[in-house]
Amino acid sequence: MQMLKDAILEKGRAINQDVLLVDSFLNHQVDVGLMKAVGEAFAEHFSGKRFTRVVTIESSGIAPAAFTALSLNLPLVIMKKQTSRILTGDILQTTVRSFTKGTSYELTVKRDFLEPGDRVLLIDDFLASGEAAFGVLHLAQQAGATVDGIGIVIEKAFQSGHDRLTAEGLDVYSLARIKSMSERHIEFLD
Amino acid sequence: MQMLKDAILEKGRAINQDVLLVDSFLNHQVDVGLMKAVGEAFAEHFSGKRFTRVVTIESSGIAPAAFTALSLNLPLVIMKKQTSRILTGDILQTTVRSFTKGTSYELTVKRDFLEPGDRVLLIDDFLASGEAAFGVLHLAQQAGATVDGIGIVIEKAFQSGHDRLTAEGLDVYSLARIKSMSERHIEFLD
Repeated sequence: MQMLKDAILEKGRAINQDVLLVDSFLNHQVDVGLMKAVGEAFAEHFSGKRFTRVVTIESSGIAPAAFTALSLNLPLVIMKKQTSRILTGDILQTTVRSFTKGTSYELTVKRDFLEPGDRVLLIDDFLASGEAAFGVLHLAQQAGATVDGIGIVIEKAFQSGHDRLTAEGLDVYSLARIKSMSERHIEFLD
Repeated sequence: MQMLKDAILEKGRAINQDVLLVDSFLNHQVDVGLMKAVGEAFAEHFSGKRFTRVVTIESSGIAPAAFTALSLNLPLVIMKKQTSRILTGDILQTTVRSFTKGTSYELTVKRDFLEPGDRVLLIDDFLASGEAAFGVLHLAQQAGATVDGIGIVIEKAFQSGHDRLTAEGLDVYSLARIKSMSERHIEFLD
């Protein structure tokens, strides 16, 4: 998606080979016009499939996921990051480890909002090792639902997430795939 | 806003006199069509004013704030809830206490995204005692910016937030003002 790649090149900043700062338009300050275009791009790519819910993880995925859900006329479900396990029967949880941050959290969703037979479109801002996406997959399995598509705003294609998810048969669509980066350059795949 | 009041009456659930569960359409599962209408209602009400940024607090305010920012053609800034103080010069922080939850957090924004002269429209999902809104006011003061309008999706009008904020001269516009509630009824003001 050219509009997104242009924003990354103009406003993004690679701190090092692994960390890309996009907080001026994606995850702290948000360019909502760009997020609307991002949502429409996801809706167009996945238009042949019939989903029942759009799912994202709080909080940076919410803006692009909201515009995707609007374009597809579907409800949006925001999965929560809890710091501890909740022991009630109406909640589904799985532990997600973040390798970049060295932390973990309990990915949490109420059973009411991820039901047996649900066909989920997962939208997230970043894909790196894919741990968060696998967390959503585990919760979908627990619920008797399926993840039928994954839309990613920015993919770190030099990390393993894309390959691990497609190896599971998943349809992963990333709007900007970064091949490599450093303080001096950002190079896209394709 | 009738569409919102209808959703509260049909899908909301008052757990007791203080806690309203709206997680099926506002803060866990999100009715994005309703949120778009909410954003347009805020944009219409505040159309006579000239803002520079729409601000919200992660994460339940993001969806309505994103649609408001889109309608007003403004950038959205998502203030973060940090658990500890960050000691770098490019960050503004203030402690916000949540009386309902008995917890506190450090409301955080990068100086780049709240600048001297900024005229802020604050959008949030709930207004109760107003602590979060006063946190945004304090950060705006630190930045040399002003909060020129506050748009609230659901106001607990039986709590002090609305009166405390209007006493400061602030323009507070709530789309649904709850006068009182219990397990058996929800009553709106007006």
